[in-house]
Amino acid sequence: MRTVWLNGEFLPETEAKVSIFDRALLFGQGVYEVSPVLDGHFCNWAHHAARLERSKAAARIADDTDWPAVLSELITRNDLVEGRVYLQITGGAPADRDFLSPVPPPPPTRLAFTQAASLIANPAAQTGLKVMLAPDGRWALRSAKTTQLLYSVIAKETAREAGYDDAWFVEDGVITEQTSANAHIIDSRGVLVSHPVDHAVLPGVTRINVIAIARAMGLTVEERPFTTDELFAAREAFVSAAGSLVLPVTSVDAKPIGNGGPGVITAEIRARYITLLRGD
Amino acid sequence: MRTVWLNGEFLPETEAKVSIFDRALLFGQGVYEVSPVLDGHFCNWAHHAARLERSKAAARIADDTDWPAVLSELITRNDLVEGRVYLQITGGAPADRDFLSPVPPPPPTRLAFTQAASLIANPAAQTGLKVMLAPDGRWALRSAKTTQLLYSVIAKETAREAGYDDAWFVEDGVITEQTSANAHIIDSRGVLVSHPVDHAVLPGVTRINVIAIARAMGLTVEERPFTTDELFAAREAFVSAAGSLVLPVTSVDAKPIGNGGPGVITAEIRARYITLLRGD
Repeated sequence: MRTVWLNGEFLPETEAKVSIFDRALLFGQGVYEVSPVLDGHFCNWAHHAARLERSKAAARIADDTDWPAVLSELITRNDLVEGRVYLQITGGAPADRDFLSPVPPPPPTRLAFTQAASLIANPAAQTGLKVMLAPDGRWALRSAKTTQLLYSVIAKETAREAGYDDAWFVEDGVITEQTSANAHIIDSRGVLVSHPVDHAVLPGVTRINVIAIARAMGLTVEERPFTTDELFAAREAFVSAAGSLVLPVTSVDAKPIGNGGPGVITAEIRARYITLLRGD
Repeated sequence: MRTVWLNGEFLPETEAKVSIFDRALLFGQGVYEVSPVLDGHFCNWAHHAARLERSKAAARIADDTDWPAVLSELITRNDLVEGRVYLQITGGAPADRDFLSPVPPPPPTRLAFTQAASLIANPAAQTGLKVMLAPDGRWALRSAKTTQLLYSVIAKETAREAGYDDAWFVEDGVITEQTSANAHIIDSRGVLVSHPVDHAVLPGVTRINVIAIARAMGLTVEERPFTTDELFAAREAFVSAAGSLVLPVTSVDAKPIGNGGPGVITAEIRARYITLLRGD
């Protein structure tokens, strides 16, 4: 059984519970981060910490937990070698339900847990993902990493039922991102094109690394929205996320991207990113 | 101390807790209903039950709780005479976090609680609400009553800090609704205008009653979006919600609506609605 962390205590996972008045449960007032764990170490903390600060400000949540200490101890207690650490902070549990939080607000609820997973030996890196297109009906503040995730849950489950691995969101004719990953293409000219960081997408920590690696490889990078037409004409398509690193997308709406196999540039970016993480 | 209900048990409110893996806590996968309680009885159940079915389908949650029995018993155990009953159903707590729910899904988490409140002797019925306008940045499925509520929380708290009672959302130049209530005007011709029921707004149970009452009063009702210009030219503005019934709005962005006092038609609709509820 996993040991998880809740409000300062390490607990068996089945004993970690929060009040039914918690504002994440009633209003979706929660922010979170997921960091990859390789060789027993969590990665990219500086980027995750910076984004967490911005998410907290957007969601009106205050917290000063020493997260690196909590996450390190959780990894040790669970003997985690490879996988993910997840942390969440909520608006806390006031005495009663009200859209307006009391002034001053209740203490935040803070929780964290580990997940064992094969990030490197992930079969999807060899097979690629088959995705479908879906309208992007999420809220306006996608730049904050909050628990307003039901739209992505619905889209991902709809994709599963239709026989796809995931869904790419379309808004005003351009791709925003995958349900829980940033979306990128190597376009017909060989240029890496990726939606810019604005409120339409999550500013991915893995995305920051992907773009730096691509530039180091001598690729031209254009941070701008790309259309579905550009997607279907692209040489390669791929996604980036903390929980899955970099994965190729081989078809969209059952139409092959490029030659229909995992892209060679995608594979090189993934390999370089894994090397970078292991030396983190 | 209140007695609340959680997954079949009546518990002291401080003991009602859910797993940190609950899908409402992690993904906002929750649906809910709030019903007014007057004279010890909850009201409008047929409408609430019908909407709950639609919300569950949209949020992919299954549940067959006998809610009327639960809510009646909760009201009795808490000696509630006037206020609200709240119920929520979530996607349940699987063994681990994953956007995709297991197949079959875990049992839903089901909770309910009462709130004592003065619905009838609410001072806002005399003073009216002073609201501000704010962009509507919520998600696409507002017709489902889900816990994707953080945008409304942020808007309501922003309004409080700016000295307003609440915010009315604007999208493409028209009013959608208040943060957690339907919005209506009596326009310059004396017509009740209310946003139609589509995915842009919550199909309010109180709104159904308001429109029926207005028609019984001989008013013309137009279910169509109204612009901010129509709002500022209106004779009256008001909101409807289960938790506050019908309340006048007397100013928007500090500009008076009509003569700047609570509207007479609004007051009549409110009075007739209270009479209706008491005979429910």
